[in-house]
Amino acid sequence: MSANPEHIAPEKLADAPQLDAAMTHPYPGSRKIHISGSHPGMHVPMREIELSDTRSERGSEANLPIRVYDTSGPYTDPQAKIDLRAGLADLRTPWIVARGDTETLADLSSEYGRQSARKHAGTALSGLMFERTRMPRRARAGANVTQMHYARRGIITPEMEYIAIRENLHRAQRQELRDQTLLRQHPGESFGAATPREITPEFVRDEVARGRAIIPANINHPEIEPMIIGRNFLVKINANIGNSAVTSSIAQEVEKLVWGIRWGADTVMDLSTGKHIHETREWIIRNSPAPIGTVPIYQALEKVDGKAEELTWEIFRDTLIEQAEQGVDYFTIHAGVRLAYIPLTAKRVTGIVSRGGSILAKWCLAHHRENFLYTHFEEICDIMKAYDVSFSLGDGLRPGSIADANDAAQFGELETLGELTQIAWKHDVQTMIEGPGHVPMHMIKENMDKQLRECGEAPFYTLGPLTTDIAPGYDHITSGIGAAMIGWYGTAMLCYVTPKEHLGLPNREDVREGIITYKIAAHAADLAKGHPGVQIRDNALSKARFEFRWQDQFNLGLDPERAREYHDQTLPKEGHKVAHFCSMCGPQFCSMKITQEVRDYARDKGIGDADAALQQGMAEKAAEFEQIGKAIYIRK
Amino acid sequence: MSANPEHIAPEKLADAPQLDAAMTHPYPGSRKIHISGSHPGMHVPMREIELSDTRSERGSEANLPIRVYDTSGPYTDPQAKIDLRAGLADLRTPWIVARGDTETLADLSSEYGRQSARKHAGTALSGLMFERTRMPRRARAGANVTQMHYARRGIITPEMEYIAIRENLHRAQRQELRDQTLLRQHPGESFGAATPREITPEFVRDEVARGRAIIPANINHPEIEPMIIGRNFLVKINANIGNSAVTSSIAQEVEKLVWGIRWGADTVMDLSTGKHIHETREWIIRNSPAPIGTVPIYQALEKVDGKAEELTWEIFRDTLIEQAEQGVDYFTIHAGVRLAYIPLTAKRVTGIVSRGGSILAKWCLAHHRENFLYTHFEEICDIMKAYDVSFSLGDGLRPGSIADANDAAQFGELETLGELTQIAWKHDVQTMIEGPGHVPMHMIKENMDKQLRECGEAPFYTLGPLTTDIAPGYDHITSGIGAAMIGWYGTAMLCYVTPKEHLGLPNREDVREGIITYKIAAHAADLAKGHPGVQIRDNALSKARFEFRWQDQFNLGLDPERAREYHDQTLPKEGHKVAHFCSMCGPQFCSMKITQEVRDYARDKGIGDADAALQQGMAEKAAEFEQIGKAIYIRK
Repeated sequence: MSANPEHIAPEKLADAPQLDAAMTHPYPGSRKIHISGSHPGMHVPMREIELSDTRSERGSEANLPIRVYDTSGPYTDPQAKIDLRAGLADLRTPWIVARGDTETLADLSSEYGRQSARKHAGTALSGLMFERTRMPRRARAGANVTQMHYARRGIITPEMEYIAIRENLHRAQRQELRDQTLLRQHPGESFGAATPREITPEFVRDEVARGRAIIPANINHPEIEPMIIGRNFLVKINANIGNSAVTSSIAQEVEKLVWGIRWGADTVMDLSTGKHIHETREWIIRNSPAPIGTVPIYQALEKVDGKAEELTWEIFRDTLIEQAEQGVDYFTIHAGVRLAYIPLTAKRVTGIVSRGGSILAKWCLAHHRENFLYTHFEEICDIMKAYDVSFSLGDGLRPGSIADANDAAQFGELETLGELTQIAWKHDVQTMIEGPGHVPMHMIKENMDKQLRECGEAPFYTLGPLTTDIAPGYDHITSGIGAAMIGWYGTAMLCYVTPKEHLGLPNREDVREGIITYKIAAHAADLAKGHPGVQIRDNALSKARFEFRWQDQFNLGLDPERAREYHDQTLPKEGHKVAHFCSMCGPQFCSMKITQEVRDYARDKGIGDADAALQQGMAEKAAEFEQIGKAIYIRK
Repeated sequence: MSANPEHIAPEKLADAPQLDAAMTHPYPGSRKIHISGSHPGMHVPMREIELSDTRSERGSEANLPIRVYDTSGPYTDPQAKIDLRAGLADLRTPWIVARGDTETLADLSSEYGRQSARKHAGTALSGLMFERTRMPRRARAGANVTQMHYARRGIITPEMEYIAIRENLHRAQRQELRDQTLLRQHPGESFGAATPREITPEFVRDEVARGRAIIPANINHPEIEPMIIGRNFLVKINANIGNSAVTSSIAQEVEKLVWGIRWGADTVMDLSTGKHIHETREWIIRNSPAPIGTVPIYQALEKVDGKAEELTWEIFRDTLIEQAEQGVDYFTIHAGVRLAYIPLTAKRVTGIVSRGGSILAKWCLAHHRENFLYTHFEEICDIMKAYDVSFSLGDGLRPGSIADANDAAQFGELETLGELTQIAWKHDVQTMIEGPGHVPMHMIKENMDKQLRECGEAPFYTLGPLTTDIAPGYDHITSGIGAAMIGWYGTAMLCYVTPKEHLGLPNREDVREGIITYKIAAHAADLAKGHPGVQIRDNALSKARFEFRWQDQFNLGLDPERAREYHDQTLPKEGHKVAHFCSMCGPQFCSMKITQEVRDYARDKGIGDADAALQQGMAEKAAEFEQIGKAIYIRK
């Protein structure tokens, strides 16, 4: 990455396709491990955080490494060779081929895709193009290649097994750890979610078959490391990237992808609206180990020069096929913006704030016709199932302000999304549902409950929600609050919001800030739900904190680099990272140090609980403690 | 403030007592207003945010200014003369004198205070001292000067009237505003809180008399602008400042105070632990319009050179009197750390993490005696009521990790705090209760419910709680989530956490970040509770956003400077702040713009609801709209 990441010209990518080491170096103290599955080539990545020993007067005790879910792909693997021009290895191709229900196409099926390829060939813009070495794949005539279709026929795909191993990381860890301190976990309140203690491939299959989880995995995106979205699995987060007419460049978008998954994005949506959408997307997909989502109506609108009323089903359909053949894993489709709901927004404080929603509202009013995405929904399903693209049914009428939360327009659309979910499921097309938006805390649960009810437990995928409107510049926080809560209530994936929301395009640091905020929300939700094993990391970090293992404390955190940086601002010396004190209290007066003495004392004297303490008549022990205690302060 | 705020020597304060303009300039677009009460000299400050007109094709419409609660004191008043060496005007002295129940002392009552004054006189350190021009005041023998005592005798003090005006700002605003859009508000879920639509002085009195709210207002801190803490009032936030043995300086602490109240701290706790605690505190109190809290045991421990076991009731008592005569408004007193609870912490992951708690635990174990704060509690009450210092009963056994949340030690202490509350109330001493700490989301409400039950609805004052342990460097966010939730459930004041929590001492930007996060949490809580009128600001901001009034959107936010800065990073030109688009979508393709057209259309055509729209047969209108719609894109 160049010194100024904001101003890389697109053509620079071909010259300098190397990623900045800041984006790819392994997390400090971490190493990538792989757990093999039953299929050849199936190696499920995890990150293992190495810990130092606990040292005390009684000697040294080893702390086993802690495993965490790893979204960063091969980029953080020192063994992996990265070549952005070649893209990532196509791990899933053998699995897809083995199913025998797809065929490789001789040419692109979409008119636009073919034109685009011809247009750029041999021109200056050809440097912009990802050099395709593989033609797209499509279901054979009559075949349905969705993970849901396999699941419903009782087939456990390699993707499902992969996911079981990946989601099961805590169980494997629980079996290894003998330290009971680390295994403590509060029973959660899951509001009806039911995560088993062991995630088996069969459980994954069953959840997908029921529609309660989706595996976004387009057959044209064989580079992904499969992942699952559903409320009986770990809560996931999505990061948006994308350029617009005003700023940004292709190189930046690829860099944002790598940066986003480094910090923990489980999926990435490419929301580009400017020039070169098609080309940008190809670079992103070929280099993404995470599923990619898009909002195809954005590109369709570009094709009619921004004139919403000139959109047609044919243009939209061609765009779906174009993107499906590139490998987009899920499409946001605003099929619930029905004509009848649009006037319900007229008295809102902020009308329609979804871009997709407003485009379709405009089209509906211009033609006084029902939304063509709604009327052509079954044809859309036919395309989705030929490539296994999942639906993300868009909430085009979501509230854009606290005032508009949970109103008739929003809930009317949600009911329609429930109806469409049933149609999608009839075609075995995987489906999740998008949700708000801006909602005060006490009205969040109503959204979740209604979504579960109307949409048959299809996964909910929400933007925040923002719990107040009054903090532009801090909307990662206004929304992080709502995201944590709705994640607890049952939302399966949280769409991040950056500090720049409502104000501008996020830069690298904004993306990092937004993602970490949402990792916090997702993890807080997992803890509150009582997801088995998730408290291990909290326990390990707190134990490290209590034992003054500073490096371990940093490394177990979501952002080790920032933790270390903040620590070093006050106490920069290396020696301070092994010191038994911190800058809050200084060396002489440290509450954790005092507590450690209290605990040692209680343990030495066999005082395990209150009764024992009171019964032992502690006067004699008090005298001893005084000796011990005074020793603490000798180094004054 | 010098270029490098981290390294100002204490003695520099005397040379350069001017505050940096960055700390004192008025908020952009805002002016300070004062509403007079019935007592001479009672002028209650508020901030008024001026708004620009709404412009449309139908002409221009004025937007009335929006009033917001103002904690910043005279520092943001261009009319005010600030002289840090003289301190702020003593607004409340006439009210205190008029009550006729206090006397001015001839000398300081505390041994330490007298020694300190003598020690520095004429030495190099005298430059460190605030030059006292007023001797302390104390209740006449036998008198009780607490606001609770007056309240229980049916007396409405000037402080109560002041607070009624201050808290009632939304009601006054509601009466002025005729724009129904701005007056919309969702009914809240208050869990038993009962805020009336009008806050009368009598309501304030009644809440204080019942112990459900406190007015921290030491008679020796006449400089304060009175405020109230209780769950039927706006949720408040506290910011901690303080130096420690390792870093910091006196000058910085005064600057942190001004910086903290600028961003919205309702009270400030001085948690200094290093040298010159007494002198730092004097500077802070004399210059603070916000109530100041302390943890007196920190200073008491300094007096015994950090040897907890050498603490005595006499040393502690002298410290209470010393600080009470300086004007500290509330004391954190860890009287609930009873001997019997201490061994309950031995098996915790993080033992005792409260500094005060660990000091007292150490003392109890060393002497095998009951906590002397518990055994001397009634004597402490006698001191409190002679100056009107409020109790903040400390949670010395709060959990320091998710694993330790809601355990027997924590809840045992909480029960004792309930018992102590009854004793304090017997003396008419104002009391609030401190709460955790680290608590996963689903266990937060149990804390609130138990506190209300055990402590007779005395105000709850919580630190966060942090909802996960895994994000050092982002604990303002892990805790902001918990703070918003517990504020909704009924907590009256939220103690902020900065990004440096667990890592180091917060700098200026960390304090700002922590405070804004907590203003968000408090406001989100007010919205969820349905506090009358609080949604006005959200509505006004969202309306400004929808109408592309960029400056108004920035100025209505909690941090106008950051909002503008973030906007300008993408679109720096002045012209862009009146543009009808933003950087997210660019000029040609903007959802809000499209929506505005939809709304105009619906309004022009008289389409107010879905039925009307469907009945009107919109084919003809569709044609018209097409004309209008096309015009939007002419400026391509």
